[in-house]
Amino acid sequence: MAVAATQEEANVSQAACAEDALSALTGLVGADMDATNRLIVERMDSPVALIPRLAAHIVAAGGKRLRPLLTLAAARLCGYPGAEGGARHVALAACVEFIHTATLLHDDVVDESQLRRGLASANAVFGNQASVLVGDFLFARAFQLMVADGSLRVLDILSRAAATIAEGEVLQLATQNDLSTTEAQYLEVVRGKTAALFSAACQVGAVVAHRPEREEAALAEYGMGLGIAFQLVDDALDYAADQTRLGKTVGDDFREGKITLPVLMAHAAGSAAERAFWQRTVGSCEQTEADLEDALGLMARHGAIRATLDRADGFAQAAKRALDAFPDSRWRRALREVADYTIQRAR
Amino acid sequence: MAVAATQEEANVSQAACAEDALSALTGLVGADMDATNRLIVERMDSPVALIPRLAAHIVAAGGKRLRPLLTLAAARLCGYPGAEGGARHVALAACVEFIHTATLLHDDVVDESQLRRGLASANAVFGNQASVLVGDFLFARAFQLMVADGSLRVLDILSRAAATIAEGEVLQLATQNDLSTTEAQYLEVVRGKTAALFSAACQVGAVVAHRPEREEAALAEYGMGLGIAFQLVDDALDYAADQTRLGKTVGDDFREGKITLPVLMAHAAGSAAERAFWQRTVGSCEQTEADLEDALGLMARHGAIRATLDRADGFAQAAKRALDAFPDSRWRRALREVADYTIQRAR
Repeated sequence: MAVAATQEEANVSQAACAEDALSALTGLVGADMDATNRLIVERMDSPVALIPRLAAHIVAAGGKRLRPLLTLAAARLCGYPGAEGGARHVALAACVEFIHTATLLHDDVVDESQLRRGLASANAVFGNQASVLVGDFLFARAFQLMVADGSLRVLDILSRAAATIAEGEVLQLATQNDLSTTEAQYLEVVRGKTAALFSAACQVGAVVAHRPEREEAALAEYGMGLGIAFQLVDDALDYAADQTRLGKTVGDDFREGKITLPVLMAHAAGSAAERAFWQRTVGSCEQTEADLEDALGLMARHGAIRATLDRADGFAQAAKRALDAFPDSRWRRALREVADYTIQRAR
Repeated sequence: MAVAATQEEANVSQAACAEDALSALTGLVGADMDATNRLIVERMDSPVALIPRLAAHIVAAGGKRLRPLLTLAAARLCGYPGAEGGARHVALAACVEFIHTATLLHDDVVDESQLRRGLASANAVFGNQASVLVGDFLFARAFQLMVADGSLRVLDILSRAAATIAEGEVLQLATQNDLSTTEAQYLEVVRGKTAALFSAACQVGAVVAHRPEREEAALAEYGMGLGIAFQLVDDALDYAADQTRLGKTVGDDFREGKITLPVLMAHAAGSAAERAFWQRTVGSCEQTEADLEDALGLMARHGAIRATLDRADGFAQAAKRALDAFPDSRWRRALREVADYTIQRAR
């Protein structure tokens, strides 16, 4: 009991520390983020009342706003003035959040999810049809924001990211239930479905500040590493999370037969009988109530969660190294801390 | 019997005439359309094999390619050289078809359609999940094509159209089964879901040819009228079409409880008992096998199909008048014939 209490205390303190890492950044870009939130609410409006109603359900419900935070911080790192001196980074931060929200709406339809950030998902409340169409609307709005910004370079980066996201999602669908998926293939899915937008969100920060290509590339690399780390931690948490804290149910990925790194690692290290277990439960989605606990047991035996988090840590460290292209500043420190936060939220 | 045969002959000859009107335009832009088709196949490719497979199912399956035809013809009307002298209109024609295809994929998911152009719909063959995600991919690709073209004016027109399409689709969803929908509200749905893209497809033709705003506006107006006419004829055909010719099933809209102009008109003109019939069948979607025939009978009694086609004709005539902004040319004649074709395919 004493040990458990200690462990719990440690968890709490680490969670608080992770929280601090992100709130340091949130504090730094506070005024810009407020402007971004106002723009998001303003631009998700439409005479068709169902659109702002549904969009508010998912956009205004919050979430960490991690991607727009990255755009704002990357722009400031590159010397772009705050909201008082210009608003391009604010418009693009809103745009990035719209693209993200559109993909969330479509993901939840594709996954038939009932929960999102601990609340009923939009498709559960408003139906799949409305979620598909409002996702399309937000995606179009994102492009209108970019067009109003007027930079073809930004449009190039974000339209490419949008195509890559869709490719990653389709690849994930194509490898669903397929235990012969390699780690490299899985990382390709992650680069597409998650990291491409992180990368683009950071890269456009350098564009608005008119920085040289070398700095654009460094920020793109930072975002890519960060995004991969973020997704791998998410995958690990799906088998380990405190449900309340994360706003999702442990074992969602397992029940959907999703191929994620913890599964691939436990499967690769498993005996013939264990592989048969994974084939039945994740490959064929034939599951009983007790299977999730067995899956967690097998992951613990082979250290699959720890190994996944180690991989994530490797990507987070690479992300931090990419920031060496910039001189030390409070912005660089804040962005390095985001990489730490990404890992810490799982420890 | 003799009358029926004569009627049938008349139908055949009118269908052939309608076919000719479109094939005249198709002949005029033949080389440009071939280039467009090649670009469509090239740009729907992806290392993720499921994407070109699903896209080929819907894109390569054909359809009339009416929207890209409009872009090509509008550009030529404005003096833009053919494919040998420039390729911007070809790129934008492909872009317009991608946007259209993306909305078709999402529409079929939203409507749970099993048929599209007389073949199994993509969602019926590949599933809803893949249809949603490949739709997203094609939408992103459309924007990449626009970005490569490099005109912010084009991006503005088409991103606005994309948002308007989504608004129209959501509005349609919101008025589903609602017999208190007014004709004005229904026309707002049609402007969004169908005519906005026709309008934008025509307007960008003037942009690539660097024509003054007045000509842009005239082409936008032509496309808007044409698109509304096209949709109203489609709505009429859903209650009257020869199934094989149209590649759709008579009564699809009825069975889905879709509010279209023929229904609104028959409902408005109906007795209390007839209104109760529409309320049960379309309002509440409680239908028996015999209801469709009764619906067709009520529409015939009140001339709802003819009245819908008359409305369509009014919009087609307005479309033709908008072309008066241009001097006579084979391109203007071809575009006027398209407006006639739109109406003739129903007569």
